Amino acid sequence: MENLTYAGFALERSSELRLQHDEVQRLKDQDNLVILPVCNGKNLFNNSNNTYVAISLSEARDLNLFDEEMIFLGFDGKVPYFAANIFKEDQISGLNIHWEFKSLHSIINLITFTQASILAYARGMSIWHSNSVFCGKCGMRTESDEEGHIRKCISLECSKKIFPRIDPAVITLVEHPSEESCLLGRQANWPFGMYSVIAGFLEIGESLEECVKREVEEETGIIVNRVLYQGSQPWPFPSSLMLGFAAKAENFQFSPKDNELEKIMWVSRKGLKEFTEMEDIDSDKKLPSKHSIARTLIDSWVKREIKFL
Amino acid sequence: MENLTYAGFALERSSELRLQHDEVQRLKDQDNLVILPVCNGKNLFNNSNNTYVAISLSEARDLNLFDEEMIFLGFDGKVPYFAANIFKEDQISGLNIHWEFKSLHSIINLITFTQASILAYARGMSIWHSNSVFCGKCGMRTESDEEGHIRKCISLECSKKIFPRIDPAVITLVEHPSEESCLLGRQANWPFGMYSVIAGFLEIGESLEECVKREVEEETGIIVNRVLYQGSQPWPFPSSLMLGFAAKAENFQFSPKDNELEKIMWVSRKGLKEFTEMEDIDSDKKLPSKHSIARTLIDSWVKREIKFL
Repeated sequence: MENLTYAGFALERSSELRLQHDEVQRLKDQDNLVILPVCNGKNLFNNSNNTYVAISLSEARDLNLFDEEMIFLGFDGKVPYFAANIFKEDQISGLNIHWEFKSLHSIINLITFTQASILAYARGMSIWHSNSVFCGKCGMRTESDEEGHIRKCISLECSKKIFPRIDPAVITLVEHPSEESCLLGRQANWPFGMYSVIAGFLEIGESLEECVKREVEEETGIIVNRVLYQGSQPWPFPSSLMLGFAAKAENFQFSPKDNELEKIMWVSRKGLKEFTEMEDIDSDKKLPSKHSIARTLIDSWVKREIKFL
Repeated sequence: MENLTYAGFALERSSELRLQHDEVQRLKDQDNLVILPVCNGKNLFNNSNNTYVAISLSEARDLNLFDEEMIFLGFDGKVPYFAANIFKEDQISGLNIHWEFKSLHSIINLITFTQASILAYARGMSIWHSNSVFCGKCGMRTESDEEGHIRKCISLECSKKIFPRIDPAVITLVEHPSEESCLLGRQANWPFGMYSVIAGFLEIGESLEECVKREVEEETGIIVNRVLYQGSQPWPFPSSLMLGFAAKAENFQFSPKDNELEKIMWVSRKGLKEFTEMEDIDSDKKLPSKHSIARTLIDSWVKREIKFL
C-alpha cells in the first residue's frame, strides 16, 4: 500500500542537525531557504498558481520571524525547509493579495503529492507547538528546542521534555464471512451520505490487533479474526497516524455496544459501484476521499488485492 | 506474532460505560471490585505471594480515594477493575508490611501474562494522568472526565480535551543481503553488553515504513527495502507502542549519520548463540529481555519464521 497522500518521503529530515544549532542558524541565512508559514492549522496558499507559499529570506527578515517559531523540517536537495508557526493571520497574508491561509483538506486536490506531504509535515509540527505551550506536568511555560523538534519546560525543577504527539488510530476493512461484501458504517456528524470502514483510536495497554477487534465489536457487534496490517498513513488532522488493517468477520448480525455509528451495513462489490465520490454533495451514498487510507482499503478490496492467506 | 508481554486482552474495557457516570459509581460500591494503585509509575506488589495488590472496597473507603484519582479499566467477568493514581507512596504501602510499590520491569518475571497486561494498562493510564495535570495549550488545570479516560481543561474559554498519549516507535530486524545475518546495535547508556535491533520514534508526517527506512539509515547507514510489519506491543515505559518490522538490507557497510549507536554489527544465526540472557550481568553479549518485541523479532528470525515473500 504505497503512494498514500501525506506520506511520501518528500524531505530528507537530517535529524542530526537538530542538535547543531550554529549549523541550522547558517541555513536560516541561505538565500534559497523555504519557509512555510502555518497559522491555526492552516497552510499558506497562493491562489494565483495553486501552490504553497514559501516566504523568502528578505520577507522573513522584514516580518521579524522569531527563532522560537521556526521549525527545521529538512532538505529538498540543498534547499533547507522550515515551518514557521504564525499566531496572527494578517501578519503574513497581507503581503500578497493572492496569499491565503487555507485548510489542507480544502486545497488537497489542487496540489501535488510532494506538496501535500511537505505541508502535512509543517502543519502537524505547528499544531503540536501550539498545543504544547505549557508543561502538562507542572503548568509552567515550555520553550522550543532542538530546532523545533522538542519543547522543554522552563522550570528548572521540572525540565520535562515534550515530544511531538502522534495519536495512532486503526482503520479496518472487515470482510463478510461469505467474502462477498464488506462492512461500512456512518457517524451522524459526518458529511451527508458518507460511509466508511471501521476506525478508532488505540488505547493504552492494547496492541493494534487487539484494538481492531475491540473497535469493530464495540461499534458493530461483529467479531473479527485474521487481523492483517495493510499500511500506514500520517493524518495530521490534527495529529493522527492511520493504521490500515483488513479482518475477517466471524458473524454478520449487528449488535453495537456503543452509539458511535448511526448506520451499519454490508455492501457487496457490486453495491459499491452505486457509491459516488465525496464531491457529489447530493448523493446519499458516498465513499471517503481518495486521499484517505479508508478509501484505499475499500478500493483494494474491490480489486481483490487484499489477501487473507 | 502473538502472546507478547503487556498485550493480551486481559480486561473487557466496556468503554461505553465511560459515559455512564452513575453506573460506574455503582461499580465502585461493589464488594468484589479490584483497585490497582499506581504511584510514580510503580505498581503495588505483594512480596509474600508475588502478585499485584488489589485494594479492597473497605480499604479504599478508609483511604478516602478521590474520584479524581480513579480510572475505570474494565471487567474481568463481572469483576470491575479500577486504577488509582496515588501521589504519596506511604499513603498505601503502610497498610501491609508485604506491600511495596515496584517497577513493572523489576517484577515482570514473577507475575503472570495476564497480570502483566493489567498492570501495564493501569501504569500507562496513571502516568498519563500525572503528566496531564495542566493544559498544554492555555496552562490552566485539567480535570479527569469520562471515568479517567480523558482530561479536560477547566478554563471555559479553552475546554481542551486531552486524550491518553501513546508514542508510536518502530523496531526493526534488518536482514543482511546474504540472508545469513542480522543487524544489531547498542546505545552507550544501555546495560553493559546489551545489543538490540534498530528502533526509533515515528515523526510527524511519516508513515511507519518511511520511519523504518529513515531510522535504519540514520543510525547505521544501511538502506533497507521490503519493510514488512510483524506485530505490535504496548510498552508503557512510559507510553510507547512498539511496532515490529523486518526489512531487507541493500548494502552492508556502516556509515551512521548520528551517534545514537556506539556499536553496530552483523550477527549470524550461529553468532547469536553466543549471546546470553539479560540476567547474565557479566556477559558482554546480551540480547534484550524475552518480554520485548525486539527479542521476539530476533528469535523469529533465528527460527526462520520471518518471511520476505
